[in-house]
Amino acid sequence: MYEVEVKVRADHETIREQLEASDAEQVNRVEQTDIYYNAPHKDFAETDEALRLRRESRYEDDEVVDEVTVITYKGPLVDESSKTRREYETGVDDGETMDAICEAVGFEPTATVEKERERFELDGYTVSLDAVSGLGEFVEVEVEVESGVDAAREGAFDVLRKLDVDPDDQIRTSYLGMLLGAPEE
Amino acid sequence: MYEVEVKVRADHETIREQLEASDAEQVNRVEQTDIYYNAPHKDFAETDEALRLRRESRYEDDEVVDEVTVITYKGPLVDESSKTRREYETGVDDGETMDAICEAVGFEPTATVEKERERFELDGYTVSLDAVSGLGEFVEVEVEVESGVDAAREGAFDVLRKLDVDPDDQIRTSYLGMLLGAPEE
Repeated sequence: MYEVEVKVRADHETIREQLEASDAEQVNRVEQTDIYYNAPHKDFAETDEALRLRRESRYEDDEVVDEVTVITYKGPLVDESSKTRREYETGVDDGETMDAICEAVGFEPTATVEKERERFELDGYTVSLDAVSGLGEFVEVEVEVESGVDAAREGAFDVLRKLDVDPDDQIRTSYLGMLLGAPEE
Repeated sequence: MYEVEVKVRADHETIREQLEASDAEQVNRVEQTDIYYNAPHKDFAETDEALRLRRESRYEDDEVVDEVTVITYKGPLVDESSKTRREYETGVDDGETMDAICEAVGFEPTATVEKERERFELDGYTVSLDAVSGLGEFVEVEVEVESGVDAAREGAFDVLRKLDVDPDDQIRTSYLGMLLGAPEE
């Protein structure tokens, strides 16, 4: 399974108009707070690994209907072109306790990424309007495919064009990377 | 809150008779599989810390009625006489994934402790009949108190005597310690 993902800076007000005009369907709205940790015995920024604790609140009509916490490990890229990584993720009952365990065994929180994310469905793609604290507004177009990564990426570009966004403005840096000061590339 | 705990090697058949004669109440029966990890940057055996992943199956009439997985960090003793430690514990959805995360971030499984534990209630104490793989049969008498540790320990000794067990045979080594070859003390 490959995840194709294209991210561009974009003003949400404009995109919303295009989403409505395109009959996109709203899927949900969530708030995510991600804590990223660094390991005590190596630098995850150098080894291209990540340990993340994500607390997500799901909203319906401005009310929180569900809160979940998941812990995720992402391994280094094993294939550059398809961006394939080893990934393990499981839910945990209590985010604060899990954070305390991570810190107690030596992992240091290095950054917190807070965002509001509205998900829509359009032409088989997931369109996310992300408002990220400290960084601003973005649109992300995403799909999972078994094969045909290039065609899927072209399809994501088409979705962006439909939303009046130029795919050439694509940003490859993660939100974490941007918050840690990496240039947008 | 102090946890007072006294453990003795004992043949379960004999104890069961005494428990019945004493009108002890069976609380539950569980199977626990504990994986202990060591840290990549220090030796938890030396720092007196522990990271443990416990999978517990609860039985009722020989049927599994519940399965839970919890991850626990135990800090070093902060008070020798009361055996007080910092402890963080939370449930996780998927034990195998949590194990994969622990190993991926550098923690090495050092030992697995498997036991069947039957819990009874007697005179305000929890009496556990533990059958530990590779170690044999034990009885553990336990209570949590806000204060009065010495009196609670004397009470635990009384419960053991009631079960025809000599408190002087108390073992202070943990099951993990015994499995790793520490002498029973």
